[in-house]
Amino acid sequence: MTKAIYAGSFDPFTLGHLDIVNRASMMFDEVFIALGTNTSKKSLFTADEKVEMIQEVIDKSSKSNVKVIQFTDGLIVDLAKKLEANVMLRGLRSATDMEYEMNIASMNKTQAPEIESVFLMANEKYRFISSSLIKEIAQFDGDISGMVPENIAKRMKEKYIKK
Amino acid sequence: MTKAIYAGSFDPFTLGHLDIVNRASMMFDEVFIALGTNTSKKSLFTADEKVEMIQEVIDKSSKSNVKVIQFTDGLIVDLAKKLEANVMLRGLRSATDMEYEMNIASMNKTQAPEIESVFLMANEKYRFISSSLIKEIAQFDGDISGMVPENIAKRMKEKYIKK
Amino acid sequence: MTKAIYAGSFDPFTLGHLDIVNRASMMFDEVFIALGTNTSKKSLFTADEKVEMIQEVIDKSSKSNVKVIQFTDGLIVDLAKKLEANVMLRGLRSATDMEYEMNIASMNKTQAPEIESVFLMANEKYRFISSSLIKEIAQFDGDISGMVPENIAKRMKEKYIKK
Amino acid sequence: MTKAIYAGSFDPFTLGHLDIVNRASMMFDEVFIALGTNTSKKSLFTADEKVEMIQEVIDKSSKSNVKVIQFTDGLIVDLAKKLEANVMLRGLRSATDMEYEMNIASMNKTQAPEIESVFLMANEKYRFISSSLIKEIAQFDGDISGMVPENIAKRMKEKYIKK
Amino acid sequence: MTKAIYAGSFDPFTLGHLDIVNRASMMFDEVFIALGTNTSKKSLFTADEKVEMIQEVIDKSSKSNVKVIQFTDGLIVDLAKKLEANVMLRGLRSATDMEYEMNIASMNKTQAPEIESVFLMANEKYRFISSSLIKEIAQFDGDISGMVPENIAKRMKEKYIKK
Amino acid sequence: MTKAIYAGSFDPFTLGHLDIVNRASMMFDEVFIALGTNTSKKSLFTADEKVEMIQEVIDKSSKSNVKVIQFTDGLIVDLAKKLEANVMLRGLRSATDMEYEMNIASMNKTQAPEIESVFLMANEKYRFISSSLIKEIAQFDGDISGMVPENIAKRMKEKYIKK
Repeated sequence: MTKAIYAGSFDPFTLGHLDIVNRASMMFDEVFIALGTNTSKKSLFTADEKVEMIQEVIDKSSKSNVKVIQFTDGLIVDLAKKLEANVMLRGLRSATDMEYEMNIASMNKTQAPEIESVFLMANEKYRFISSSLIKEIAQFDGDISGMVPENIAKRMKEKYIKK
Repeated sequence: MTKAIYAGSFDPFTLGHLDIVNRASMMFDEVFIALGTNTSKKSLFTADEKVEMIQEVIDKSSKSNVKVIQFTDGLIVDLAKKLEANVMLRGLRSATDMEYEMNIASMNKTQAPEIESVFLMANEKYRFISSSLIKEIAQFDGDISGMVPENIAKRMKEKYIKK
Repeated sequence: MTKAIYAGSFDPFTLGHLDIVNRASMMFDEVFIALGTNTSKKSLFTADEKVEMIQEVIDKSSKSNVKVIQFTDGLIVDLAKKLEANVMLRGLRSATDMEYEMNIASMNKTQAPEIESVFLMANEKYRFISSSLIKEIAQFDGDISGMVPENIAKRMKEKYIKK
Repeated sequence: MTKAIYAGSFDPFTLGHLDIVNRASMMFDEVFIALGTNTSKKSLFTADEKVEMIQEVIDKSSKSNVKVIQFTDGLIVDLAKKLEANVMLRGLRSATDMEYEMNIASMNKTQAPEIESVFLMANEKYRFISSSLIKEIAQFDGDISGMVPENIAKRMKEKYIKK
Repeated sequence: MTKAIYAGSFDPFTLGHLDIVNRASMMFDEVFIALGTNTSKKSLFTADEKVEMIQEVIDKSSKSNVKVIQFTDGLIVDLAKKLEANVMLRGLRSATDMEYEMNIASMNKTQAPEIESVFLMANEKYRFISSSLIKEIAQFDGDISGMVPENIAKRMKEKYIKK
Repeated sequence: MTKAIYAGSFDPFTLGHLDIVNRASMMFDEVFIALGTNTSKKSLFTADEKVEMIQEVIDKSSKSNVKVIQFTDGLIVDLAKKLEANVMLRGLRSATDMEYEMNIASMNKTQAPEIESVFLMANEKYRFISSSLIKEIAQFDGDISGMVPENIAKRMKEKYIKK
């Protein structure tokens, strides 16, 4: 039984994230989307809003082995142990990404040798997408369809109008 | 049921390769070590020698879900289909590796969208190891223990003495 | 008046190459597709076949400011001078590409400071495509539509059947 | 008619920036140096000071097709549309730069497919220069001649003495 | 007589740093560990604490040609001149590191052409270690033995308990 | 006493190589330029011609602590031991270079832990130079002054005229 954790701050959750989750859900028995609620980083959406939006997306894609959870500050490997997950799932978009992730994977290995980091290459059509670039575009009323799921695009627009 | 193919020319099979196989065997139901017998490349060992050596290594590690097979020239995705494998397993050692592998993964996706490429980061102690560097060292009677399994180190020495 | 040279061995000319040419043709007055006929490299198609195929592609795209020419061994900057071109056009697909191209550009600058190297990023859907990978796929009867123009796909199939 | 925008925060405008502008001015009909006045970033010079200094530099180099403009927060492609520019001009100094720029270029393409991002490789003698490193050096009274135009070097000294 | 400066903020000093110092001490006549006390960066330890801890480590390793010093804000080459050091010593862990360091080295060369930057590759077992990742782990009570010297591990635990 | 080996095939020895040697000669007691005479690689110059040319260059630069030697196939660390050298000297030009060199350095460490690999960054004006690119330019009668020492430029011209 292989359970994978896909952790991130997902501010917002993008079509690139969704693609990784969908592909992983074919290959692993269970996939946890673990929303980190790091209190030190400013974020556009609250943790509750994020969970709600991601849950809507997952419900729509009808993947019964994908679960959305929150975790507060702490080592990600500790969360993995608690969930009895044996795989840390990560997407790779570029060589720069890769060097960073390689270090994190090695570091995690020192804390929990039994947990494996597993990487999927981002689909080329989502490779340039990052949550921060999407926020920049949305902020100036650019077109973010094709970057985030519909429900999230809608919510982002609302956020920036309110501001 | 997730079956993974780990393809390569394995000339020779290194401790880095073994590490990837062992880690994957924990996470996937079945792992095929697929030895490509590309006729155009000169190799130190014959395909039969390689299969024999790798089989010895696998037998010793007692992983019952790892199998060694040969495949002759052809698209690796066609082999995957024949074996009903849904995962192409690859190790990553560096950013240069990664850019190359990203292209292969995208290319494979065009041929068989249902097959996923999955990447494990090489263990840092094996990251600098490559089959070609090992051959260079063995050729001049350097120390290759710590780079290849024992039985393979022994066979390499024999090869180079004969030459 | 800005004339650009887009040089390569184009064995074969891909949709990635075509995309670069089309985009450049919007921005420069004239674009020369310069087919290098380096005698030392084995190629699938003859120079004449390549010119014919590329010309067909260009004719179909109705870009009146794109010309296909051959050049035999020599410095590419000498060709540029002869054609009174002031731009060397190059596509970039990856960081590895970029480091190589940066060196070539610096080198060309030493030979002809008045000629600029100009780079376009490959479209993300063509970024993983390379002529050599395409040949590998075609050779084993894989699907190369989506990688090369139709007429070229047809010719490649013929080549490999004959073989 | 090809009009290019070269956008940045230019705090300060360096000899590397100037080199890109000069080279681009040979190849495009018009080059706009677009000074972004992003209010969230602290900068050494005010927007007005920057425009004045860059204008002095451009006047001196007698390039009649180069114009200096300011733009306040917004999508750079919107500025391009307003100016009827069809080229976003960028300099590349390293592979890390390149991966970042590739993403921005792809992102811009989603907002305005008709606008091309065009890259020039930084001259090797300016490749290590960045505005932030220059400020660090100037701050401790190091030698920044050879990194910024004379008038700007003079102004930077004044700034740091006042502080 | 070759004197080398190994500068950093060392917050904390890691086994990776120590490895670089030990290797350099074999090859250079004198090695200065120069602790930058950049006042703008928040740090876990005070400068005095850091010097004390590093000194303990050096005392234990009995390298008589290694000295620990503090330097306040200023150009590192100015410190080198004051100490009559002719080598700036740096560790390299990755390609991203390397591109950054290449720029710093070029920049330093403009300020003091007689001072050389010399690079050692980080030992592969320390390559993934960074001071910031170590702090993240220690903060959540993870295991940092194997990343920092014992005395420093002990002090970090104390810091985080107090907090 | 620190002795460094700078090994290569030097076909030809470039101004980039010379720059590395000159800088190293300031910092190490002795520098050996070790010309590998790998019989499997085709080269423009014979080993004897190379030694002669490099010796001329060194004589001219009056560095009394630089020696030119030949070595035939074998492990470079074995040569180091024979010469009682404790440093392998390498130049770095790019991130791609760096990843390759990092592997070689790790590999060498397994064979001779007491020998250190030390890296100097190539001077930015020589960073794009490689022996193979120089041969391509010389072959077509391009200008290679500024890339190789004068005596070597002269000899290259002679070679290519004879051909």
